[in-house]
Amino acid sequence: MNIPQSNKKRVIIIGGGFAGIALAKKLKNKNLQVVLLDKHNYHTFQPLLYQVATGGLEAGSIAYPIRKVMQGCEDFYFRLTSVKEIDTNAQKVISEIGDLHYDFLVIATGSKTNYFGNKEIERNSMSMKTIPQALNIRSLILENFEQAVLTKNQSDREALINFVLVGGGPTGVELAGALAEMKKAILQKDYPDLDIQKMQINLIQSGDRILNTMSVESSNASEAFLESLGVKIWKNVRVTNYDGRIISTNSDLTFDSATVIWTAGVQGAAISGLDVNSLVERVERIKVNQFNQVKGYDNIFAIGDIASMESELYPQGHPMMAQPAIQQGNLLGENLWRLVNGQNMKPFEYNDKGSMATIGRNKAVVDLPKYHFNGVFAWFVWMFVHLFSLIGFKNKAVVFLNWVYNYIRFDREGRLIIRPYKKRSFTTFTSDEV
Amino acid sequence: MNIPQSNKKRVIIIGGGFAGIALAKKLKNKNLQVVLLDKHNYHTFQPLLYQVATGGLEAGSIAYPIRKVMQGCEDFYFRLTSVKEIDTNAQKVISEIGDLHYDFLVIATGSKTNYFGNKEIERNSMSMKTIPQALNIRSLILENFEQAVLTKNQSDREALINFVLVGGGPTGVELAGALAEMKKAILQKDYPDLDIQKMQINLIQSGDRILNTMSVESSNASEAFLESLGVKIWKNVRVTNYDGRIISTNSDLTFDSATVIWTAGVQGAAISGLDVNSLVERVERIKVNQFNQVKGYDNIFAIGDIASMESELYPQGHPMMAQPAIQQGNLLGENLWRLVNGQNMKPFEYNDKGSMATIGRNKAVVDLPKYHFNGVFAWFVWMFVHLFSLIGFKNKAVVFLNWVYNYIRFDREGRLIIRPYKKRSFTTFTSDEV
Repeated sequence: MNIPQSNKKRVIIIGGGFAGIALAKKLKNKNLQVVLLDKHNYHTFQPLLYQVATGGLEAGSIAYPIRKVMQGCEDFYFRLTSVKEIDTNAQKVISEIGDLHYDFLVIATGSKTNYFGNKEIERNSMSMKTIPQALNIRSLILENFEQAVLTKNQSDREALINFVLVGGGPTGVELAGALAEMKKAILQKDYPDLDIQKMQINLIQSGDRILNTMSVESSNASEAFLESLGVKIWKNVRVTNYDGRIISTNSDLTFDSATVIWTAGVQGAAISGLDVNSLVERVERIKVNQFNQVKGYDNIFAIGDIASMESELYPQGHPMMAQPAIQQGNLLGENLWRLVNGQNMKPFEYNDKGSMATIGRNKAVVDLPKYHFNGVFAWFVWMFVHLFSLIGFKNKAVVFLNWVYNYIRFDREGRLIIRPYKKRSFTTFTSDEV
Repeated sequence: MNIPQSNKKRVIIIGGGFAGIALAKKLKNKNLQVVLLDKHNYHTFQPLLYQVATGGLEAGSIAYPIRKVMQGCEDFYFRLTSVKEIDTNAQKVISEIGDLHYDFLVIATGSKTNYFGNKEIERNSMSMKTIPQALNIRSLILENFEQAVLTKNQSDREALINFVLVGGGPTGVELAGALAEMKKAILQKDYPDLDIQKMQINLIQSGDRILNTMSVESSNASEAFLESLGVKIWKNVRVTNYDGRIISTNSDLTFDSATVIWTAGVQGAAISGLDVNSLVERVERIKVNQFNQVKGYDNIFAIGDIASMESELYPQGHPMMAQPAIQQGNLLGENLWRLVNGQNMKPFEYNDKGSMATIGRNKAVVDLPKYHFNGVFAWFVWMFVHLFSLIGFKNKAVVFLNWVYNYIRFDREGRLIIRPYKKRSFTTFTSDEV
């Protein structure tokens, strides 16, 4: 990897998400050599991916160059690569661009979509964990509309504008709301030759309420918001297959749709090389102690979504979201420094600041630790929290400007198919007079 | 194409560039059925492509959804497709999505890169006529830097950060300037482990001055500006080949570079089906009379870059740029309407408003018909003209905000590799300890 030897200890961080970046910033000029590896050269602000997917924001507004975050750090090295595995005996990371020895290794690889082993669903449905995936969804939505205006076959046309979101967590709920807003404000005007009332947004949830990690009040409010926007919510329904056209479920219920967006499960983005005893197999997360030390290793740590730290309050580990990741990254930054200086590490305690989701124009739900609210005020809170969490002044300003514009004009001008996605390859569609 | 019969005459416009959009807007609700065909669902503001390529602007800021431009038009149809050919006997356009009969056909397909038949240059070099191409250039520039930090082989490393721009027209000049600004302000800070002084920007021009369609004063000023930024200008040099690594020329001069951006020639983006006598073979443009009527046809028109209208002042047709395209589109909109109403068409007269190019921070050259100037004031003029020419309030505002930010902060935050481009496939590079 062409990284010079230094007389400082070397920390390798795998992943530049919320956890990895928080850690790297804490280690700035702290008498450690820091090497950060990531598949992308930018940090992604994942909570706003759904707005990229629905044309409300440009990709660049929620991405930030990692090298820019770390400008001015001494003995810091970023490398754009994919890690293949780790060799814990030789203390080496093995990557696409070569091997590198570590003194401390921090795994901050985050999470990926969990299809629970169903390869056919994985092949035919869309997921939304990265910017390229969000842009693929954007392209597909628009391509389907472009294809729908071409066909005279009614069932094909309706399948092309039937959007099925599997999973009633924040991603599914926020996407459903954004699609419903697009339907009302934009698609109706853009496609006057389509009967837009035929556009369906179906949200399928396996449990008995959506947003089930939030309060019951917030679940109920978000259901009411979504229904007022015309989203159909299907609870206690489990999707069993999707062949690219027909969605089957655990009941007689089926859906005929060209677009399934799968947000029904996440799992850790695991790396091979760790002892199996240090893994939570079912969700592919890595077991860590209260210092984020991986079970069975002294000098390997895991932080963020990939780390499963069991505690009384969180017997299955912390929720896989930004806040625990940032807090763990920050604390590990201090702890590594303590470790190098022969001091004791501090145990992690999660400070739950609450959670929130936006459903659409003037509609959001907010759970603070002791207080739940929803509606217009919640929506403003949601906006300001997200705006201020973005890295960089310019991204904040551009996102703010976009939101004000979109709000006033009921518009989303990012409806651009820059890179087409599997262009018209729905072989299951009947051929049609074109 | 699923377009209803109407009792109005049908105009098919091929291409939603400057000419096609200007025409379509003029034909809004004018008692004609208008069908607009384009490969992209957005209009591209091509003069700012080089800023997308160099990370100064996001793609969405210079693109505008065609359906949004045409919202509220009656009997207007947009179709996303590529036209394969035209059948002038049957009066049909034959496209990927089917055939369509026309009463009037307008060819506004614009221009494409001209490699003068050299397939090896075409395969190995980059061109910049579309947004996806500009994004590929952006990715490649950044990928080359990421690869350069990995290699210890000096000649590989220097080739990776040697950028060769072939063609000294506005595109080559503006790109060269933007790359030089990136070098100074960003790359130096982003890649502290590279010797940035080894980064080269070479601009190769076959003639004896750059910007040779502008005044001699502007040519000289832009040369001085580029040289002050560290760009090396090679005049009277013709590139004869590029194998992906070595650029050969008509003299002993060679360059060793991983990146060649080819802006040395444009030609019309021709469509098959027209009589050969109506074509200017060398540049693939279509011969039109002063009403933009294609030679030999009454009901087929060509406007913009693709149209070659010979006149005393422009014996080889008008320059292939935005202004003639917009003016021809506007006039043809009126003329078609006159034609349908049995009136005489008006001949086209080009109103040359001048031309300009920007070289970098505070540096631009402007040629007005009777007056040439350059420097800071020219740079402001350039910015305001481009800002106001963008479609849409939001794009104007976002571009303005980006420019102010980039100016104050000496920054370009769009240095994101969203879609990698032919990832590390320089097989001509020696394998290296990685």
